[in-house]
Amino acid sequence: MTVIALTTDLGASFPAAGQIHGVIWSHAPAAKIVDLTHEIPVRDRISAQVVLENALPYFPEGTIHLVVISPSAEEAPRPIVARLGSMLFVGPDNGLITPLIEHAEVNRWPVEAFHANNLKYWLPAGGSPVLAIYASLAGHLAAGVPPAALGERINDPLRANIPAPEMIGDGWRGQIVQIDHFGNLAANIKRAHLEGIGPVQVRINGIAIEGLARTFGEGKHGDLIAMIDSSNHLSICVVNGNAAERLNAHTGDVVEVQPRHAI
Amino acid sequence: MTVIALTTDLGASFPAAGQIHGVIWSHAPAAKIVDLTHEIPVRDRISAQVVLENALPYFPEGTIHLVVISPSAEEAPRPIVARLGSMLFVGPDNGLITPLIEHAEVNRWPVEAFHANNLKYWLPAGGSPVLAIYASLAGHLAAGVPPAALGERINDPLRANIPAPEMIGDGWRGQIVQIDHFGNLAANIKRAHLEGIGPVQVRINGIAIEGLARTFGEGKHGDLIAMIDSSNHLSICVVNGNAAERLNAHTGDVVEVQPRHAI
Amino acid sequence: MTVIALTTDLGASFPAAGQIHGVIWSHAPAAKIVDLTHEIPVRDRISAQVVLENALPYFPEGTIHLVVISPSAEEAPRPIVARLGSMLFVGPDNGLITPLIEHAEVNRWPVEAFHANNLKYWLPAGGSPVLAIYASLAGHLAAGVPPAALGERINDPLRANIPAPEMIGDGWRGQIVQIDHFGNLAANIKRAHLEGIGPVQVRINGIAIEGLARTFGEGKHGDLIAMIDSSNHLSICVVNGNAAERLNAHTGDVVEVQPRHAI
Repeated sequence: MTVIALTTDLGASFPAAGQIHGVIWSHAPAAKIVDLTHEIPVRDRISAQVVLENALPYFPEGTIHLVVISPSAEEAPRPIVARLGSMLFVGPDNGLITPLIEHAEVNRWPVEAFHANNLKYWLPAGGSPVLAIYASLAGHLAAGVPPAALGERINDPLRANIPAPEMIGDGWRGQIVQIDHFGNLAANIKRAHLEGIGPVQVRINGIAIEGLARTFGEGKHGDLIAMIDSSNHLSICVVNGNAAERLNAHTGDVVEVQPRHAI
Repeated sequence: MTVIALTTDLGASFPAAGQIHGVIWSHAPAAKIVDLTHEIPVRDRISAQVVLENALPYFPEGTIHLVVISPSAEEAPRPIVARLGSMLFVGPDNGLITPLIEHAEVNRWPVEAFHANNLKYWLPAGGSPVLAIYASLAGHLAAGVPPAALGERINDPLRANIPAPEMIGDGWRGQIVQIDHFGNLAANIKRAHLEGIGPVQVRINGIAIEGLARTFGEGKHGDLIAMIDSSNHLSICVVNGNAAERLNAHTGDVVEVQPRHAI
Repeated sequence: MTVIALTTDLGASFPAAGQIHGVIWSHAPAAKIVDLTHEIPVRDRISAQVVLENALPYFPEGTIHLVVISPSAEEAPRPIVARLGSMLFVGPDNGLITPLIEHAEVNRWPVEAFHANNLKYWLPAGGSPVLAIYASLAGHLAAGVPPAALGERINDPLRANIPAPEMIGDGWRGQIVQIDHFGNLAANIKRAHLEGIGPVQVRINGIAIEGLARTFGEGKHGDLIAMIDSSNHLSICVVNGNAAERLNAHTGDVVEVQPRHAI
């Protein structure tokens, strides 16, 4: 009853996402599959990594994370599988695995990675890599094939971190890394960065916000506020409204946090 | 093999909906989960209730309905669980449960409700309420924890009805409560309201429609018609077209039905 | 552990798609259901057939394909079920089944079709046909009811093929039959049509493309290229871009392929 979580940029309305279920169930009829999201912006590695990082704590032991974004024309990443403690990763070797490796390191889990080049576990008839390679590998893993059977052990899966904020004086300069359905803006500045900093001013797109709210209830309808969200990211929000629209904000926009005494 | 149906305003493209699956499967690996919809307009209680009311007859005995809309900043509804006959409800105590209570009363099912304040059944690590509270409660219910274990018995879950139409002379004045994917407009005026009324005129947004069609086939391509839809709602439709666009109609728009002899 | 794949034009955001899961699980609690797509353009038979044809190779033996598009007002297709080798089809008798019949003929599988008019297997309470008829039939099939129990044997399910390209001199004139999430344009001209034709020129919407690329990597960022895609369709693409937007292309647009020596 393995859980497989799918994170891709295939688009939810296009049937490729549904075909993944068919390939997995062809190998592992009992697998439970969830479409975590297929709406990663096309080729946006950072967005996929933020989705993955936020989701990890909510999935059971033994979950297989299939994470795929479309390569650009210049790329031909090798397919990899990895076991990180009880978790498994399937995807291209383009850095997407990084949040899982970091999660494993924090938890002191052993990590084993493999170049999944054993063609026996790819679909014989070919097809797009997400189906012929990645979905097929996930199905075989869910059916109990050990990762080591899928290819050669490697020690160098590509690490590519979500950009970290940089320290600016006593504060931080970061960027928006995710915009949610409600228009809330999540920055790469996290709770831990702001511990002990005292009262702050948050700046984004020429606007200054004074202080961090603890809850939405501290603001009035329509107020622009900053707070730490439930994923521990600094988040800029409009109470009962949409901050992305209000600020015409996009991922990559700069966010600065400075202690009040330094302004 | 419990079925859990999810109705939220989280948005289908945002991964929060997928994280709910992870939390539930962490407690109840065999649960079958369906995303009934995550596209309830943000904070729209009535829309969520209409979705729930329409869906109830199609789900098997024992289904757990997890129904959550985002609170406004002023609200802090207590989490409740309820058993209604064989059905279970998990969600905030803000009136969303009302269609289930009415369904239970019609079927003379016993109703038991609980304030789910036993923190043992919330996620210890916290997070957004939909995951840390509601998804966790649904997972424990699916794993066989009885509702009474989740908190204190209450007798006053908030009831907030879908607005009823009002009688105007020999006819009815109601409102649009749902617009579907095809642009058909469903009113809160239902089949039972119109029994015995005879030939009618339907008015919406300054347009009059004469009579009720029994099927789409009675109209010609492009005709604006009124009929009783498969959920027993009075529905305004364009044959092979989109009535919401044609009439620039929105939920809340007034719909009136008068018998022909009264016009 | 039967797999049921859903292909409809109901729209993913509208809860009708979720209600199908409820009806199926009411009859077959162990069925595994995948929403292949609910985003078929409304009443677009060809688009549904292309989705189905592409998906067939990726689903396990015994899969039940529920395929429904909304009838126009003039149509009242009879509901049919069919067994094609180990596969099963449920849907209206309006030609949607054709890709499955062709797949069965290629594989020399026996085909049996039935007019599913045994009301015992429809929902007694009625409702929209997709729920009251098609979802109910799929649920009973998944629960092990044999197709022959659902109605009378018929020998004439309607066949309506995806339009074939026509031969023009030594080349082909076809049309775009699917546009994917990335804006790639798939034509009804397939790999087999182009075998042995030598170097070609591809024309669409007044633009000429010289030659077929074997991979995206042969083009530069932003190049318009033609290639055979992973479903064996001739596909027009922009490297790292969106061909549908670039060419303002739509399904039905004409695509011509001519050998270079004939130009």
